[in-house]
Amino acid sequence: MKAAQSLLALAAREGVRACFANPGTSEMHLVAALDSAPDIRPVLCLFEGVATGAADGYGRMMQAPALTLLHLGPGLGNGLANLHNAYRARTPIVSLIGEHATYHRVNNPPLASDIASIARPVSAWLKTAESAAELLILTQDAIEAARQTGPATLILPADVAWSDEEPTAPAPPLKQRESFDDGHWDEAARLLGPRTLLLLGGRFLSANACAAAQRIAAKTGALALIETFPVRVRREGAGAGLKRLPYLSEMAAASLSHIDTVILAGAAYPVAFFALPGRPTTLAPDHARILEIAAPGFNIERALTSIAALVQANIDLPRAGEAPVNPNGGAIDPMALAQSIAATLPDNAIVCDESNTAGLFCYEAAASAAAHDWLTLTGGAIGQGLPLATGAAIACPDRRVLALEADGSALYTIQALWTQAREGLHVTNVILNNGAYAILRLEMMRAGVNELSEAAGALFDLKHPAIDFCALARGFGVPAERVETAAKLVAALERSFATPGPALIEVMIR
Amino acid sequence: MKAAQSLLALAAREGVRACFANPGTSEMHLVAALDSAPDIRPVLCLFEGVATGAADGYGRMMQAPALTLLHLGPGLGNGLANLHNAYRARTPIVSLIGEHATYHRVNNPPLASDIASIARPVSAWLKTAESAAELLILTQDAIEAARQTGPATLILPADVAWSDEEPTAPAPPLKQRESFDDGHWDEAARLLGPRTLLLLGGRFLSANACAAAQRIAAKTGALALIETFPVRVRREGAGAGLKRLPYLSEMAAASLSHIDTVILAGAAYPVAFFALPGRPTTLAPDHARILEIAAPGFNIERALTSIAALVQANIDLPRAGEAPVNPNGGAIDPMALAQSIAATLPDNAIVCDESNTAGLFCYEAAASAAAHDWLTLTGGAIGQGLPLATGAAIACPDRRVLALEADGSALYTIQALWTQAREGLHVTNVILNNGAYAILRLEMMRAGVNELSEAAGALFDLKHPAIDFCALARGFGVPAERVETAAKLVAALERSFATPGPALIEVMIR
Repeated sequence: MKAAQSLLALAAREGVRACFANPGTSEMHLVAALDSAPDIRPVLCLFEGVATGAADGYGRMMQAPALTLLHLGPGLGNGLANLHNAYRARTPIVSLIGEHATYHRVNNPPLASDIASIARPVSAWLKTAESAAELLILTQDAIEAARQTGPATLILPADVAWSDEEPTAPAPPLKQRESFDDGHWDEAARLLGPRTLLLLGGRFLSANACAAAQRIAAKTGALALIETFPVRVRREGAGAGLKRLPYLSEMAAASLSHIDTVILAGAAYPVAFFALPGRPTTLAPDHARILEIAAPGFNIERALTSIAALVQANIDLPRAGEAPVNPNGGAIDPMALAQSIAATLPDNAIVCDESNTAGLFCYEAAASAAAHDWLTLTGGAIGQGLPLATGAAIACPDRRVLALEADGSALYTIQALWTQAREGLHVTNVILNNGAYAILRLEMMRAGVNELSEAAGALFDLKHPAIDFCALARGFGVPAERVETAAKLVAALERSFATPGPALIEVMIR
Repeated sequence: MKAAQSLLALAAREGVRACFANPGTSEMHLVAALDSAPDIRPVLCLFEGVATGAADGYGRMMQAPALTLLHLGPGLGNGLANLHNAYRARTPIVSLIGEHATYHRVNNPPLASDIASIARPVSAWLKTAESAAELLILTQDAIEAARQTGPATLILPADVAWSDEEPTAPAPPLKQRESFDDGHWDEAARLLGPRTLLLLGGRFLSANACAAAQRIAAKTGALALIETFPVRVRREGAGAGLKRLPYLSEMAAASLSHIDTVILAGAAYPVAFFALPGRPTTLAPDHARILEIAAPGFNIERALTSIAALVQANIDLPRAGEAPVNPNGGAIDPMALAQSIAATLPDNAIVCDESNTAGLFCYEAAASAAAHDWLTLTGGAIGQGLPLATGAAIACPDRRVLALEADGSALYTIQALWTQAREGLHVTNVILNNGAYAILRLEMMRAGVNELSEAAGALFDLKHPAIDFCALARGFGVPAERVETAAKLVAALERSFATPGPALIEVMIR
């Protein structure tokens, strides 16, 4: 199994430090080879969707790839939804998918399938290692592709992994590419004005990038917004209050109705999440001119600070006001939830937000909280929040991670709690229990079905029977408590933030 | 949304009676249309892998398709592993995958992906409905393809579903095909002898088919076996003791080393599940002649009873001996487990077996139990057992379903318990808790890695922390108890079999 060992040694040399694994028989030699790669931390996940979501959280925080180790087509399938989110986020990840031995594929054994067909829609790079000789060259390519463009998938037949053939050494990686292009900055500066939208996105929005956008907006009257579901935003200082484009397409379109120029800074052109009968699908007016100053996925800090200098946007911005320290002590509605989070968030926390309807106000309220990073559901594939938090905590062991998680979404990948307990991760999982797929009720009305049909009423309901998230957490080894008032929520949050290791707080939403 | 209503009306006319659903925004109009299709029972699942596994269990028992309702590429991905198992079983299923509106796909919204690429490896039939006009023709084709060949996938853009255009009526379905071919029966009868393997498979092995195979073996000296992972076997009377080809390739190859003729009756040619260094991948000797008397997936009862008549195999077979009524009362090892199951299984039960290592002896021991159906993991994609049991119970509400489930596998789709509680299904979930991915320890040794590496030791371990399956069950609304002796296991099984609704028994395996 020299080939498997060489692969891991190369990955370690290239800075890979974690492997989120749910292996099977076809990955045995890679598992065995982990012993010879002490710099790579193996993290066991009970379900592949936890492994891929954790790799996404890790990659967003480290800006460097982790490995995932998945078992053939079905294992990849189980991890596919969170790879979709990572693909949309362009997160660096290298997924190793075990495959049958090259000579066994022709026998069409029960677990055989067309792995590449399954992987292609979520892979920025995709190859199958057909021999040990080419293994290191492909591994190097995969790592480089992951860094540059997002999830890379390397399909690894078992006999290639167990081969004792010495793989060919890869060429040294190309010099890091320059990732910005200043050709359009002058033009962007000239176009800024009250009818201009400056839309921010990319793999990471730094505090400087957000502050520059805020200053540009204050100086020129332009509308500066972050894309609806950003990969990662650092919220600290002058830029912490920068708002996001609303999710509901009718609200987004209304807020952009005056726009005649769209400047895209690392964001994609804004479109509706879903088409609905009679509603807009592109969100800015059709006549609007579009200027892209950085392609999606690129770091835009330099572009924005340069443009801010060009327009002399050196205004001192006020810091967002303090959150009320003691929010309304009664029943927990979305506003009380948001205030409780903002009031208690510890310094330098990481928030993984899959809170959907109940968490509607959390992002804006947290503008006044201590400095933090905010990560969102980039690809709309629910079941991401708990795995994302797990991976972020592996990446940043000294920071507190807060998972804001809707009840329905939590149940897709609830197994993440076990990995948090096993690894002693400092994650506070806040489950927002409203006993429903509430977002679907809303979407049904938006779809023009005004009366909730009987079948729909039943299919959106999670109360029969009620789900006891505290019991589920304890089953996976995570301490848990249920709260029904904002005062108790604040106390529970403070307790968890002060206690090492994971906790789950089940919040009964009014 | 006449189109969605017409689709469901056609499905109901064609005998579809259940829809296993985990819908999202793109499926809203189909959900709303369910109200106008009262013959189709909507069954909500918390995770798509539960929906697809349940549709598999339903289809195996009903020999007729259920619908699944899944949400775009990520929802399909979540359901992919159990669709893989169903594809290998050739189970009739019609999966409806919601897609973005046809005119919105060009905008590449966050949830967009190449659904067909993901679906193709698990679909016996695959189409996208590009207009309401063709919707019913495609629906009819999908149902017919599901009946004939296995899982059919119909990708359904939202605007096609919500259209009020009147779809074109489909042509009446073709007359049911004759599903057998007697051309080889005489030849098969001539080839039967002590060096002949008669290997049975297909969508359903009836009691008559199994008994005919047993009689043929007794008369001719041939080796009659069922394929390693059969779709569904009826175990009743003279054929109940018919054995399966062993899983471990070295055992299977040894038991077939004398064979010079392989007669395939609904089974595929026997191959190893995985290739391992230096081990065989095809299980019969290379020189063996192969005769196929029924293609995989076909019902073979008529072929086998005809061949039995040709060789005058009208021997009276003894019934398998009674199981010990009171197995060893001490700690539960795999043999005590098997005996406890065999002694208590109620008449006409359905066993869904994903018991892996700890359940090794259950199948053979149950040969002497009351008549029952046995369903196995056809495609090797774990996480199937609890969903399969859920679907079988929807299909057969008057029968007791027993899920024999390994601990590691159970955790992939543990959310199935909630659907069992919600629908009041008579499922006894027996979780075999050995605190490990025990099968992987075995596979690692078979892979030639003789010492368990440190990383592997950790990655195969489920004890840190220990998982409390009773707490998980209660979290999902299913009553649960833990047993540590065979006497308590027998009592718990009897209690559950006598109590309507679901239960979970956590069996601590020695």
